[in-house]
Amino acid sequence: MKKEYQQEIKNALAATEKLDGINHVYFVACGGSMAFMQPAEYIFNRECDIPATILPAREFTTRNPHDLGKHSLVVSCSHSGTTPETNEAVNFAKGKGALTVGITYTVGSDLEKNSDFTLHYSWGKGTDASDLNNGVLYGFLFSLLKSVTGDNKYEKGLEALDSLETMADRVRKQFGETAKKWTSELKREKLIYAVGSGINTGETYSFSACWLQEMQWIHSGYINSAEYFHGPFEVTDFDVPFIICKGLGVTRKMDQRVIDFAKKHSQKVYVIDDADFDMHEVDDDFKEYYSQILSGVAFRQLAEGFAYERGHSLDVRRYMGHLDY
Amino acid sequence: MKKEYQQEIKNALAATEKLDGINHVYFVACGGSMAFMQPAEYIFNRECDIPATILPAREFTTRNPHDLGKHSLVVSCSHSGTTPETNEAVNFAKGKGALTVGITYTVGSDLEKNSDFTLHYSWGKGTDASDLNNGVLYGFLFSLLKSVTGDNKYEKGLEALDSLETMADRVRKQFGETAKKWTSELKREKLIYAVGSGINTGETYSFSACWLQEMQWIHSGYINSAEYFHGPFEVTDFDVPFIICKGLGVTRKMDQRVIDFAKKHSQKVYVIDDADFDMHEVDDDFKEYYSQILSGVAFRQLAEGFAYERGHSLDVRRYMGHLDY
Repeated sequence: MKKEYQQEIKNALAATEKLDGINHVYFVACGGSMAFMQPAEYIFNRECDIPATILPAREFTTRNPHDLGKHSLVVSCSHSGTTPETNEAVNFAKGKGALTVGITYTVGSDLEKNSDFTLHYSWGKGTDASDLNNGVLYGFLFSLLKSVTGDNKYEKGLEALDSLETMADRVRKQFGETAKKWTSELKREKLIYAVGSGINTGETYSFSACWLQEMQWIHSGYINSAEYFHGPFEVTDFDVPFIICKGLGVTRKMDQRVIDFAKKHSQKVYVIDDADFDMHEVDDDFKEYYSQILSGVAFRQLAEGFAYERGHSLDVRRYMGHLDY
Repeated sequence: MKKEYQQEIKNALAATEKLDGINHVYFVACGGSMAFMQPAEYIFNRECDIPATILPAREFTTRNPHDLGKHSLVVSCSHSGTTPETNEAVNFAKGKGALTVGITYTVGSDLEKNSDFTLHYSWGKGTDASDLNNGVLYGFLFSLLKSVTGDNKYEKGLEALDSLETMADRVRKQFGETAKKWTSELKREKLIYAVGSGINTGETYSFSACWLQEMQWIHSGYINSAEYFHGPFEVTDFDVPFIICKGLGVTRKMDQRVIDFAKKHSQKVYVIDDADFDMHEVDDDFKEYYSQILSGVAFRQLAEGFAYERGHSLDVRRYMGHLDY
């Protein structure tokens, strides 16, 4: 990770330490920028006693959580830094006395101006994965967990960042042909469900809402693996497509149960299995947490495959950026 | 509310008071039984400083929250009381020393046996709304909020239960013809999106996952109003149907923004507006909280309309109850 990003993390971390106890961490943003922070909420809830909640920005602002105050940490994200709802949430949190940390690509953006501390990240082809949004978030997250729990094991979580690009690149090479094949087979579908759980919740939601609905105009819904058998599974039929993300760790069995059933009743079940991805560089304690970043690499390749097969560029929008709303 | 239900609430409440401070309330269940508790998580977060989290049962168990322990309250629900994931979650929570309260229709069920305390509810036509699952949940919730905050205003929340049946019945009469008209117009649709937010999140999710997907085999996805413009809205087109729940209170403006946009670009936008429902019996502080129960009455009428128009009974399942999985 770039030295300047490491320094930004250190600065934000020092401010959290001055809070003298964090009462609640809120992760607030919109769409893909929210989804990418879901693993942070998940990891926080598993690793420490500080409550963590993730909310769409305006759900956060309108909800006005009762415990939001000067001991709260509010982490937000906006790529452009201009998302109105996210900036509104940050200003709202600051008004309540909370410490605000904004994650953004854009130097000098509104989000940077509004947040107490900013974590920048890099973007685009050729960027080392540790400098992307995921890398920076995990850099901050594991530093914060080390700080609040005093457990040195999080050093291993931080060390894994050095191998993130190697692992991501390996997945790109490994999954490329698979992505081409799947998207060729699925390119005429009008609707594709995305299923996942646990650490993969955010990436799977993002695949449904951002890659499929937003960037390919393909109808979709996100289904949590734990919920599939409690309603959604009744739509399963021989011609209904599901893309299912099978996790590495504690949710693996639950994901597998969905796959077993769906494969019996649909001919169009496609499984991204995180266990297929070589993660030998990462300490066992952190493999599950890092696996979702690799799921995201595979999801992105599927999106690129759809774009190619359907002649529908990922940059095309009919509303966003063209209309006022 | 029946005296025996009031007594069950009192018993559970007394146990929460013995915890000497609740560190976290977890609401855990599956499908519709989870969705119906979402307002409780929402209200808790708005009204008091005790953190509250809602999770699908097996997401809860696999996640194994770090702060789950002898000061935690775990509220679960299962209509039959037999849902394996929910019972597993309750036993898991008990193993960690948490206080468990199970909400169920079924006397003597596994959930009752496994939970420290049980809140029963009634079901079926002719049941007074205060004795249904929503009534019992709100009875417990507002009693608990009064207990933990010491604020007597929650008495008004409890008093509103006496008028719930009157209000629900009024909505049934008022919305009946509308439900028939909408479902006649929408009966050939293969996919219908459900949009809502805030206090209506659970009922809107439930409409999508349980009424449409499970009971009508109509494809669907739940979209949070705060998320619509951050991905999903790009699928909006002249022939894409949306059923949108427009809230009463703090999220109303956010829901309205979705409605304004969707109506411009789709000819099939249907709005359940909670402001159309007379709630004069309820104190202003509690109108928003109660409104979602009335949204649920309208959603149910839509489900019944679909069942009639499509000749597809709400009791038909192809998998649930017929197959092992």
